[in-house]
Amino acid sequence: MRTRAAVAVESGSPMEIMEVNLEGPKAGEVLVEIKATGLCHTDDFTLSGADPEGAFPSILGHEGAGVVVEVGAGVTSLEVGDHVIPLYTPECRECDYCLNPKTNLCQKIRTTQGAGLMPDGTSRFSMLDGTPILHYMGCSTFSNYTVLPEIALAKVRKDAPFDKICYIGCGVTTGIGAVINTAKAEIGNRSIVFGLGGIGLNVIQGLRLSGADQIVGVDLNPGKVEMATRFGMTDFVNPSEVEGDLVAHLVELTGGGADYTFDATGNVGVMRTALEAAHKGWGESIIIGVAPAGAEISTRPFQLVTGRSWRGTAFGGARGRTDVPKIVDWYMNGKIEIDPMITHTMPLEDINKGFELMHKGESIRSVVLY
Amino acid sequence: MRTRAAVAVESGSPMEIMEVNLEGPKAGEVLVEIKATGLCHTDDFTLSGADPEGAFPSILGHEGAGVVVEVGAGVTSLEVGDHVIPLYTPECRECDYCLNPKTNLCQKIRTTQGAGLMPDGTSRFSMLDGTPILHYMGCSTFSNYTVLPEIALAKVRKDAPFDKICYIGCGVTTGIGAVINTAKAEIGNRSIVFGLGGIGLNVIQGLRLSGADQIVGVDLNPGKVEMATRFGMTDFVNPSEVEGDLVAHLVELTGGGADYTFDATGNVGVMRTALEAAHKGWGESIIIGVAPAGAEISTRPFQLVTGRSWRGTAFGGARGRTDVPKIVDWYMNGKIEIDPMITHTMPLEDINKGFELMHKGESIRSVVLY
Ligand SMILES: [Zn+2]
Ligand SMILES: [Zn+2]
Ligand SMILES: [Zn+2]
Ligand SMILES: [Zn+2]
Repeated sequence: MRTRAAVAVESGSPMEIMEVNLEGPKAGEVLVEIKATGLCHTDDFTLSGADPEGAFPSILGHEGAGVVVEVGAGVTSLEVGDHVIPLYTPECRECDYCLNPKTNLCQKIRTTQGAGLMPDGTSRFSMLDGTPILHYMGCSTFSNYTVLPEIALAKVRKDAPFDKICYIGCGVTTGIGAVINTAKAEIGNRSIVFGLGGIGLNVIQGLRLSGADQIVGVDLNPGKVEMATRFGMTDFVNPSEVEGDLVAHLVELTGGGADYTFDATGNVGVMRTALEAAHKGWGESIIIGVAPAGAEISTRPFQLVTGRSWRGTAFGGARGRTDVPKIVDWYMNGKIEIDPMITHTMPLEDINKGFELMHKGESIRSVVLY
Repeated sequence: MRTRAAVAVESGSPMEIMEVNLEGPKAGEVLVEIKATGLCHTDDFTLSGADPEGAFPSILGHEGAGVVVEVGAGVTSLEVGDHVIPLYTPECRECDYCLNPKTNLCQKIRTTQGAGLMPDGTSRFSMLDGTPILHYMGCSTFSNYTVLPEIALAKVRKDAPFDKICYIGCGVTTGIGAVINTAKAEIGNRSIVFGLGGIGLNVIQGLRLSGADQIVGVDLNPGKVEMATRFGMTDFVNPSEVEGDLVAHLVELTGGGADYTFDATGNVGVMRTALEAAHKGWGESIIIGVAPAGAEISTRPFQLVTGRSWRGTAFGGARGRTDVPKIVDWYMNGKIEIDPMITHTMPLEDINKGFELMHKGESIRSVVLY
């Protein structure tokens, strides 16, 4: 079949909207009509050429929601008409990682997915002239129709709106999951969130959900205060307005340091501050943000020996097929909010404008509606 | 009263054996006759002058065992004749730290202890000319008699030999506790221990106790193999004999990386290797060794985002009054071994020779017998 897609032809250039060929699903695969997709910093990172593993031409996008159109041989957990959210972290439920309760990093199709291919080592996408186009993060939601492995699709309820729940495919789950799955933050915790963009806001609402007593937000932009407060922030700190040492200020503000700190900036200097602002004896600092290639974190080992832990999280520690449907339920029954974070919507033709809004810091999340 | 002690008169010089004045115990304090004391690297670190918090003159030593001689007013948990092990990490059972199950770092007397003083802000030791002498780590076991706070003494069974259980006051508990309290290593774990000195050997026997399937020891000195094997090491790696990347070698040897890695070297480069040799998804790396002042650990944040945790431990995460008596029981009933690690004993007069043996790498543990 043919489908309309935004193709990343080469790094550093705007994507091109074009018709492409899409082969039908092979065994264990599913054809999905994407109804909506969010634009994530990770797409932008790859498109910019900064991602050392980026390869072109490819169809980006990994934060979508849609409907099953066709299932390949052997697919048993999904049928035509099911509503689904693509998972860049799949859940096969049978690899060593899926069987270890400490991790969500299913490795079943990691190698082919990392190479931009389906599990059989080939791509379903090609240009009309036959040139192959790579998949991206196993999802390629910047195509109106896309093919995914069955294990990379979460089946969700049919009454949930695609234009909102697509955000659960990455940002919402990453932020909330960092609190609930990775930190396992306990009721009454005091926590600090560095960076009040989309991920940071979702960490904040995850903390509110966890019953936090104090949720400190740290950002250089005071324009973030209103929205962060709406999502549960109790204290705001602008580092540019702190006299003296930021760590000391945060430790005092939290009564000895935070139980949990979260970096949602990707800045390795901020990651250090986050670690050192964690409470002596038991504070945990969790890295969510993706740092530039080659950047390193550092600290004195004394910080760890005196009881702080340095950890990280990917896709919020969530097992997508199991956890994503629950998060959709939380949205539908009002436990969490998504609507105020979707600040812009646009047709696929305007997708490059969506990334411009991201660069200017004018959007929290832009969503493409097919 | 007067007592014989090894006094660290100034940094960088051998200790001097002399008679010193010792005031009796004040309220909440206990006078202890030390029967045996181990010589630890931390004493040596302070005596050398490398410890930025070291102060002189002081009486070092923090790994002892002895008998209660007199109790001060209000002491209720100990009486004359009790056998005790001094605790440089006390356990008051009422501070915010003692009441938090995630930490053992009781802060009740931290400030005065760090300043070399008893909780009332004064010292019990002085030179015969009246010059005050500082306490050290709240213990000062290099004095035949010493005064400690009640909360810094673990009461232990009377049939346990002082010359062996003194080692439980630091090295044994630090190593075994890192496995049992900090890592909480599960049966069947695969782990790597960097540095096969006294602490490393105790980590190894802690891992054996935990039911580890694989215990890899890493050391540049092949002379460590025999003893480490005796304590439970299953595989030895000499980095100088590994061709190519050490991390890759260790990851392959452990079938994908270790569930737990332990740094017992204090070398920040080794700490990085230890982190990166931990298993993707769930591996935890635990820093035990004390790094030189100013040294920093570093790694790419990707190591944490893909599921590794970087942690530390002090006194093996043990709550001394609760846990040390249990470890003494484990020794007495044969669950753990100590005897082969006590390679040298000597009278107090020869204490400086004990540190020379440490410098030459000829001893695992030297113990002074009073
Ligand atoms: Zn994303
Ligand atoms: Zn799996
Ligand atoms: Zn010690
Ligand atoms: Zn305490």
